[in-house]
Amino acid sequence: MSPTTELVEAAYQALATGDRKQIEQYWAEDMRWLVPGNHQLAGWWEGLDGFFDFMSQVGKLSGGSFVMTRSAILLADGWSADISHNVGTRTAARDGSTSPYDRLEIDVVHVLRWRDGKVIEGRGAIYGDGTTQFNQFWSQLAADATRVAA
Amino acid sequence: MSPTTELVEAAYQALATGDRKQIEQYWAEDMRWLVPGNHQLAGWWEGLDGFFDFMSQVGKLSGGSFVMTRSAILLADGWSADISHNVGTRTAARDGSTSPYDRLEIDVVHVLRWRDGKVIEGRGAIYGDGTTQFNQFWSQLAADATRVAA
Amino acid sequence: MSPTTELVEAAYQALATGDRKQIEQYWAEDMRWLVPGNHQLAGWWEGLDGFFDFMSQVGKLSGGSFVMTRSAILLADGWSADISHNVGTRTAARDGSTSPYDRLEIDVVHVLRWRDGKVIEGRGAIYGDGTTQFNQFWSQLAADATRVAA
Amino acid sequence: MSPTTELVEAAYQALATGDRKQIEQYWAEDMRWLVPGNHQLAGWWEGLDGFFDFMSQVGKLSGGSFVMTRSAILLADGWSADISHNVGTRTAARDGSTSPYDRLEIDVVHVLRWRDGKVIEGRGAIYGDGTTQFNQFWSQLAADATRVAA
Repeated sequence: MSPTTELVEAAYQALATGDRKQIEQYWAEDMRWLVPGNHQLAGWWEGLDGFFDFMSQVGKLSGGSFVMTRSAILLADGWSADISHNVGTRTAARDGSTSPYDRLEIDVVHVLRWRDGKVIEGRGAIYGDGTTQFNQFWSQLAADATRVAA
Repeated sequence: MSPTTELVEAAYQALATGDRKQIEQYWAEDMRWLVPGNHQLAGWWEGLDGFFDFMSQVGKLSGGSFVMTRSAILLADGWSADISHNVGTRTAARDGSTSPYDRLEIDVVHVLRWRDGKVIEGRGAIYGDGTTQFNQFWSQLAADATRVAA
Repeated sequence: MSPTTELVEAAYQALATGDRKQIEQYWAEDMRWLVPGNHQLAGWWEGLDGFFDFMSQVGKLSGGSFVMTRSAILLADGWSADISHNVGTRTAARDGSTSPYDRLEIDVVHVLRWRDGKVIEGRGAIYGDGTTQFNQFWSQLAADATRVAA
Repeated sequence: MSPTTELVEAAYQALATGDRKQIEQYWAEDMRWLVPGNHQLAGWWEGLDGFFDFMSQVGKLSGGSFVMTRSAILLADGWSADISHNVGTRTAARDGSTSPYDRLEIDVVHVLRWRDGKVIEGRGAIYGDGTTQFNQFWSQLAADATRVAA
């Protein structure tokens, strides 16, 4: 069975509420999520609890500034993919900084696997050289190599 | 109009023949292709001629060993995405080497845009920390930092 | 006043004991240390306490396997530099693994500034493409993108 | 025999003239030079001819804007090291761009080996996360992933 565009949108909207009850309707308890790159948030986050930990870190490190704008949703039996333009500013950024350690602007695709109307696996991937910029943005370093408190 | 699974498969099979006549049936003359990462093959290749240049470099640097195995094709109006497991060995690899500068094994997604039954844009993106491995594999360096002749 | 080869060797030998009393004879309380690359240990560690935190993390993540072999010590007024071959195995490594996420072997140089016979600043830097390997070795990822517990 | 500060300075000044006759007085015909990072200029350049090729590429890609400012020279028997602040702008840079793909500013150390008053080997290494910035600056990519003509 293929998910629909409406189901994918609903799943992301539930996520945006941060409300676990709503999220559990679309995201399976045993789901896992793979964050691309090599930085403190990269790798497999296991379980819905792990996914919440990941989102909590994103919110904390970016001061809630992280915004994803979807431009297309692709579907197949048991699969969806969404194309997204992601921007954010680091909580620790200096005012007006354009450094890639402070500001992020990348194009990505998330590929989701579905089972019984719920996401059981998600993997992000980044276009162009955005992975270098993602590694800089989530770095434990500021642009001057100061270690940023987690 | 949405491409079909059969159309996407046919487009990749045409590509595998290397025969320009067949390829032109599925890939537009003004297409462009974005290779992820930061290495000698990364970035936008412009036009079908540019795409041929890219594929020619891939063949030369990997001695024709580069193999893509598709596991799913996703669709939307004007879009397709295919999930692929890619492996290859560098032409200059030392026998039996397991170094990431010699051997590549990554999971990727290609996202294609279609117009009138032909691909007009393709962008690759890599899961996990595969971009680091992609950068090493296409590096102008061998594992010991010797410069490998292009 | 220039440090001597003997003084530099004595400072590193004091460090190897892990004994704070001995270490304080050669390393200033307000020293700082810059670890190269972009990974969980990278950046400026502030103060002798920060430097101890850094070394404690190195020991924990590498199970005490990290070994530095010096081949030369260079000197100038207020400066020293030592050339070192560094090897280590990650605590979480799989047996016999040759993956750069598990095994490290790099050539580095440490540049130290001295004041009144004590180190006040140290900066490491890595030859060749060793920084990529350093980033993999200290990654929060295993080779399969599993997140390794800190 | 140890090189002197004056000899090291003279060697770099000869290099800056670009005059092969003068350069040959300080740099051995069979010298080799290791450029750090993973990019089109990285790795071992073999022989004085190779070193000239490397410098020619640097000049071409940076439009002669590359400037090294030395702050210290360290010495040992058969060795020297110089600490340098390096800045440059890419030939293809957009006006006023602060992107790391266009502008470079890093702190480095060069470690040289000497024989009979001439350099026989040089290796560069970069402090902090400057290697990421070096990889971006010498990338075949512009900030928007356009491929920059070599």
